[in-house]
Amino acid sequence: MNRFIEVCISPSLLSESHNNFQCTVVTDIFRATSSMVASMGNGANWIIPVSSPEQALSYRTADSSLVIAGEQGGDNLAGFDLGNSPLEHAMQGGKSIVMSTTNGTKAIRAIQNLGTGEILIGAFLNLSKTADYITSKEGNLLILCAGWKGNFSLEDTLYAGALIEKLLQKNKLFSIEKCDSALAALTLYRQVSSNLADYLRSASHYKRLIRKKHKSVEQDLAYSLQIDKFNIVLACQGDKIQILNF
Amino acid sequence: MNRFIEVCISPSLLSESHNNFQCTVVTDIFRATSSMVASMGNGANWIIPVSSPEQALSYRTADSSLVIAGEQGGDNLAGFDLGNSPLEHAMQGGKSIVMSTTNGTKAIRAIQNLGTGEILIGAFLNLSKTADYITSKEGNLLILCAGWKGNFSLEDTLYAGALIEKLLQKNKLFSIEKCDSALAALTLYRQVSSNLADYLRSASHYKRLIRKKHKSVEQDLAYSLQIDKFNIVLACQGDKIQILNF
Repeated sequence: MNRFIEVCISPSLLSESHNNFQCTVVTDIFRATSSMVASMGNGANWIIPVSSPEQALSYRTADSSLVIAGEQGGDNLAGFDLGNSPLEHAMQGGKSIVMSTTNGTKAIRAIQNLGTGEILIGAFLNLSKTADYITSKEGNLLILCAGWKGNFSLEDTLYAGALIEKLLQKNKLFSIEKCDSALAALTLYRQVSSNLADYLRSASHYKRLIRKKHKSVEQDLAYSLQIDKFNIVLACQGDKIQILNF
Repeated sequence: MNRFIEVCISPSLLSESHNNFQCTVVTDIFRATSSMVASMGNGANWIIPVSSPEQALSYRTADSSLVIAGEQGGDNLAGFDLGNSPLEHAMQGGKSIVMSTTNGTKAIRAIQNLGTGEILIGAFLNLSKTADYITSKEGNLLILCAGWKGNFSLEDTLYAGALIEKLLQKNKLFSIEKCDSALAALTLYRQVSSNLADYLRSASHYKRLIRKKHKSVEQDLAYSLQIDKFNIVLACQGDKIQILNF
């Protein structure tokens, strides 16, 4: 039986029709899910994704040992330990993290609220292992791009294309025939995959980060586009994001 | 001064941020805007786009000489003179038409309700003349893809890419640097433009029309992908779509 893959290019386009997927991969390449994989790949205990900076701060009030991380509209947040840079996150070691971002953590919350199946956290950094895990299971797959404030985002769509490419290579049961955005993501990825970094330097999100003068934008881009730096699968388990035993 | 082009890939993603464009091109290649261009290019007087079949029927009650056209969910409508096939529309001659479709006429109504600037009707059938007209004016351009029931649609996005390609060739002031979906649409179009029909046969919308067993799907596809069959610009003027004197 075919396993259908669909791509939802923005949480704003999520609807009741998306609640019948056995698995959803949420991605926010610049930079929430890349930061999550970087944290967990470098020994963090777990991450709790929340929908607002206020929620993150209230976790800290309850437990001062937590690291609170995130950004809002691309800006760092007062009173937070960390921003949303994968490079910063890679240096945290064995901490427990609460994270609030403009797009990524909101997308996770949106799909959780829809009450669908398993939720994975995807980035180029853990591309193949995530594909291996999905292949080992059954059912249909939704790839949910966090986008930027509800709109299309190039880097998230390209990750969707990369994941689809991996899955199609692994198993002939996977099919994208029901979903135009999956076909578009795959076509785009195949077209630019040999030069992903240069292509993404022309993306609006990269330019937005450059305008915000984040000191590590260029390094974050290079870091986030490393394929398979970590051999881990991240999944939402209860309110936490943790490494799956696989 | 740069003239920015943005692409909104679905009316579901329209927001207040889209009300500052001097011009919007609405496109629904399969098949509403292709049908509109086919009608008007073959001598129709004008078209009134409406949001529901009931509205179209009430126009007919008021004036029995009107042709009412459209579809709902891809199905033809009882009591309607015409469906949504560009080929059928091309054969209407000098009629006045009221049209209701699942995506295209709703997209036109959505952008009208946002109270933005000039609204044009775009299809491959009138690509170059539309590009000429936009180039002759000033200001920023929004390309609004009608999509399918709120979701991404490949053929509309490829039309957006084709129009962007034309505009960038015509004038160096046009810029897509603020919009990832414009860059993605252009990249996709450049990748598949030499084989548009074959690529679109793998699109979900084409397969949906095939499943609905519309007799003219294959001919409609070929008809709709003809570039510059008509040398006309269509614009919303009051409640009507008419040919612009240009």
